[in-house]
Amino acid sequence: MKLLKTGTHAAVGCVLLVLLILQTEATMVRHNWTVDYMFSAPDCVEKLIIAANGQYPSPPIFAVEGDTIVIEVTNHIPTEGIVFHWHGIYQKGTPYYDGAAYVSQCPINPGETFTYKFKVDRAGTYFYHGHFGMQRSAGLYGSLIVTLPDHKKEPFSYDGEHRLLLNDWWHKSIYEQELGLNSVPFRFVGEPQSLLIEGRGKYNCSLLPESTASPPGCLTCNASSPWCAPHVIPVTPGETYRLRIASVASLSTLNFILENHKMTVVMADGHYVKPFDVYNLDIYSGQTYDVLFTANQDTSKNYWAAINVRGRNPLTPTGLAVIQYLPNPATLLPTTSAPVSPVWNDTATSLNFAKKLLAKPGYEPPPPKKCDRTLVLLGTQNEINGNVKWAVNNISYVHNATPTIAALKYKIKGVNNPVPPPDFPAESYNIFAPPSPPSATYGTPVYVFEKDDIVDVIVQNANTMTPNVSEIHPWHLHGHDFWVLGYGDGLYNASRDPASFNLVDPPLRNTVAVFPYGWVAFRYVADNPGAWPFHCHVESHFHMGMGTVFAEGVRHIPKLPLQTLGCGLTKKHL
Amino acid sequence: MKLLKTGTHAAVGCVLLVLLILQTEATMVRHNWTVDYMFSAPDCVEKLIIAANGQYPSPPIFAVEGDTIVIEVTNHIPTEGIVFHWHGIYQKGTPYYDGAAYVSQCPINPGETFTYKFKVDRAGTYFYHGHFGMQRSAGLYGSLIVTLPDHKKEPFSYDGEHRLLLNDWWHKSIYEQELGLNSVPFRFVGEPQSLLIEGRGKYNCSLLPESTASPPGCLTCNASSPWCAPHVIPVTPGETYRLRIASVASLSTLNFILENHKMTVVMADGHYVKPFDVYNLDIYSGQTYDVLFTANQDTSKNYWAAINVRGRNPLTPTGLAVIQYLPNPATLLPTTSAPVSPVWNDTATSLNFAKKLLAKPGYEPPPPKKCDRTLVLLGTQNEINGNVKWAVNNISYVHNATPTIAALKYKIKGVNNPVPPPDFPAESYNIFAPPSPPSATYGTPVYVFEKDDIVDVIVQNANTMTPNVSEIHPWHLHGHDFWVLGYGDGLYNASRDPASFNLVDPPLRNTVAVFPYGWVAFRYVADNPGAWPFHCHVESHFHMGMGTVFAEGVRHIPKLPLQTLGCGLTKKHL
Repeated sequence: MKLLKTGTHAAVGCVLLVLLILQTEATMVRHNWTVDYMFSAPDCVEKLIIAANGQYPSPPIFAVEGDTIVIEVTNHIPTEGIVFHWHGIYQKGTPYYDGAAYVSQCPINPGETFTYKFKVDRAGTYFYHGHFGMQRSAGLYGSLIVTLPDHKKEPFSYDGEHRLLLNDWWHKSIYEQELGLNSVPFRFVGEPQSLLIEGRGKYNCSLLPESTASPPGCLTCNASSPWCAPHVIPVTPGETYRLRIASVASLSTLNFILENHKMTVVMADGHYVKPFDVYNLDIYSGQTYDVLFTANQDTSKNYWAAINVRGRNPLTPTGLAVIQYLPNPATLLPTTSAPVSPVWNDTATSLNFAKKLLAKPGYEPPPPKKCDRTLVLLGTQNEINGNVKWAVNNISYVHNATPTIAALKYKIKGVNNPVPPPDFPAESYNIFAPPSPPSATYGTPVYVFEKDDIVDVIVQNANTMTPNVSEIHPWHLHGHDFWVLGYGDGLYNASRDPASFNLVDPPLRNTVAVFPYGWVAFRYVADNPGAWPFHCHVESHFHMGMGTVFAEGVRHIPKLPLQTLGCGLTKKHL
Repeated sequence: MKLLKTGTHAAVGCVLLVLLILQTEATMVRHNWTVDYMFSAPDCVEKLIIAANGQYPSPPIFAVEGDTIVIEVTNHIPTEGIVFHWHGIYQKGTPYYDGAAYVSQCPINPGETFTYKFKVDRAGTYFYHGHFGMQRSAGLYGSLIVTLPDHKKEPFSYDGEHRLLLNDWWHKSIYEQELGLNSVPFRFVGEPQSLLIEGRGKYNCSLLPESTASPPGCLTCNASSPWCAPHVIPVTPGETYRLRIASVASLSTLNFILENHKMTVVMADGHYVKPFDVYNLDIYSGQTYDVLFTANQDTSKNYWAAINVRGRNPLTPTGLAVIQYLPNPATLLPTTSAPVSPVWNDTATSLNFAKKLLAKPGYEPPPPKKCDRTLVLLGTQNEINGNVKWAVNNISYVHNATPTIAALKYKIKGVNNPVPPPDFPAESYNIFAPPSPPSATYGTPVYVFEKDDIVDVIVQNANTMTPNVSEIHPWHLHGHDFWVLGYGDGLYNASRDPASFNLVDPPLRNTVAVFPYGWVAFRYVADNPGAWPFHCHVESHFHMGMGTVFAEGVRHIPKLPLQTLGCGLTKKHL
């Protein structure tokens, strides 16, 4: 009897184990990537880019909410390290796989293989990208789409869906861009040469009209250069489509338009919003929107999907894709001219759109009613030893060769600044004039929070080094979403402005824009032990120091995997 | 008395200590370098280069024989690792500071500071350069000049000296070059755009004659672009000069000429040779020559110092510098046309020059009379999975993310090939035809020798993948000099050819050329515990696999400094 009972137990245990294995297998999404240089001509001008598996954009990842994603990355680039940041993914329990070089891990050295393994907690439209130097600008990015499991349903319906990764594009290498930004005199990257939709665009040697002039590096539009055709969005007349729109732009605010088609915004950064209709929408680098549209126009024609630059005086032609009304051929190009967006400096329209974004009642949690700590972070353009820099509360962020998370976990001195960065800027600072004199310093600051602290962050914008200029900055927080409580013009007033905060149905997101001479306020819960970059998502701005790090629950940070270490002072702590 | 005696002893000890400290200080040559990208226009066309301390070429190092050189390097490049190889320095006892990425050390990560510390054993003309990917081609190199201490005298006399670092130069970035070499179809780097002397050259937008056409990126020749003037070698009429000539060329065999001046060759690769006179000399990448010349021509004129391409059908204009007969102004340019070198494919002249190089009797040690082991290494152009590669005895060298030396020292498996590479090529190989079929494989081979083994190496040349083409390869051995015992045409014959070896006065050097369809034999003593690359010094050839590693005295390899580790599988062994 005893033996039999044990045997029965063993059998039950075995079945459970098999079930567990089956379940584990079912929820693992595995990719095997080789990252290398690649010649590519996204806008018909060939240049060197960085990509995974020879695909540009890099391979899309598809997963179901709750899945574990396992990406084995081998770096084949001769001399550059790489990392991958999974933008919008919390990385709860795996802060070391957030993929921010020198914050959450050492770069993956040439020749090394590294395995990212993390859970995707929430359905939505996300993406991933390089987060070392300006490698995102070199083309290293792709889509990360998380869908609902079968037993859950979206609060909207549609017949099909399309991904649209948006980007701006330069012909100059990122190495020259990076050096220019670090040079005295300063050499800005300038406005992009092209705008890309799903990795396709056109420079002046491309389709429509067929160009006769052929600048150096330009490919001709024929079968041997398939890049030189716009991205196509096939639709069946009468059907409704979900567009998963994401911007990985390096610099530009993009305005997205579907020619003749109304769009209903249903999600922002993977969170449900109260649906509202638009004919165009502003998307800042680091943001995603899910919109619905119905193919309800004249079926004899195809239409443009278009992006234009806003927020900066645009020097870049419209980026175009084709909405192909089936069964029309994809080559039936619209004869209409490129759709026009609101004028670039019409901030009121942008702000109006931003304020329409409200959480869908019943679908998203409301924010806590009070906060434990408030930071006011002033972003300024600055100058240090003749170099043009950006700074947060007067500290221009510099990466250290030892990852921030390792320095926190192992109490390594000489890495992160020992003095906490200021919670507030100087009270006397005049946001309406260039910094006078510029007084920023270099640093590797870390704002340290207790686990579960509720934190309000006000990001304050200011005048650049140029009189009467204030730029837009899309601020992105790793490891978290935050509730956007409100926007304001001018200087944030701590005694007056919090009264205007929306604590009822503010939208949750991971990236929010601060408008010229204005401020934006958000609240988040520091419930994710780790070290999380908070930075402007403009590639050149972060490269010039516009960021900081939020660390929380430091003593709860899990053991760091060996593969994430090996650089800087971590050599001593393996 | 006891106390007094102790006091006296203490005083004597103190004086000795002070003397010791003073002596130690006197023999330390310290440099502090920051390595970064830099915009530079060596031939008047601006491009991104890599350099130390914003200088191109990087700062020269001057030391006295027996000195210890201490170079503290900080890597400021955003995403690339770096290393420095000290070409021609033995690194006795410090094999981990030889500076070959992934052979002797992990690359220095962005943001890290690394300190090289090594002794220079022997006076002579040397240089250093990047040894990771193709970073030497990106401009990362400089002079390393070791002079005799006061109590020693050179066996020749001169009144002054000048350094002449020679190079070939491309406008395309090394990233595009590296990718092209790894692409299918293959994209060769092509012939260089310019030839540089001490980091100066001219493209077609430069001086002499002043060009009216201005290609993109070309600088105009004026005070704001001081690059756009040739390097100047000032001489006082009647005086004798020592030229320290070194080639860091990426591809080209260079022929050096002093217009109207005879040169006396006195040293090769830091070793004395029997002096002989030449009007021009071939120098292969990785070699140095010390020559003497007397400024004994018409003093009313200046003269050209010139380099031309040999060994490949030259498409690159002559590289020119000016010999300035003082007090003539440097701007008094010669009115003569650029000096002409022997025709590019006249191998007989090259071989004749090579055979004139003999050790100066009484100044250099003769080779051991016998060897313990002989390797015949056949270098072939090959094809693997459609990629054009180079191979040694059919193995195309691939770097592993774990340094060879660390894998040997810590017995780390899965790094170096477990099976020793072959000591001989297949007997049936036909060196006069393209490999048929190409059959090379990728590998990370290591030839392992006992400490103090005497090794003969025969490097055998062959036909490339193109019928009737065999290229010149300058082979460089790290950590050693070797005696060049002889050259031969065609296939090496092990029973016949050793009889012709020069065992009396063969020259010692670290880099030797193998001529088309020929072989070269050398002998060396494996007396330097470490792992030493032996490779073709053509940057693209080594990048395409034309190299191997010689390891010796493995159990005598000293403990590896922590700073040299952290990559690949060494993470587990810190």
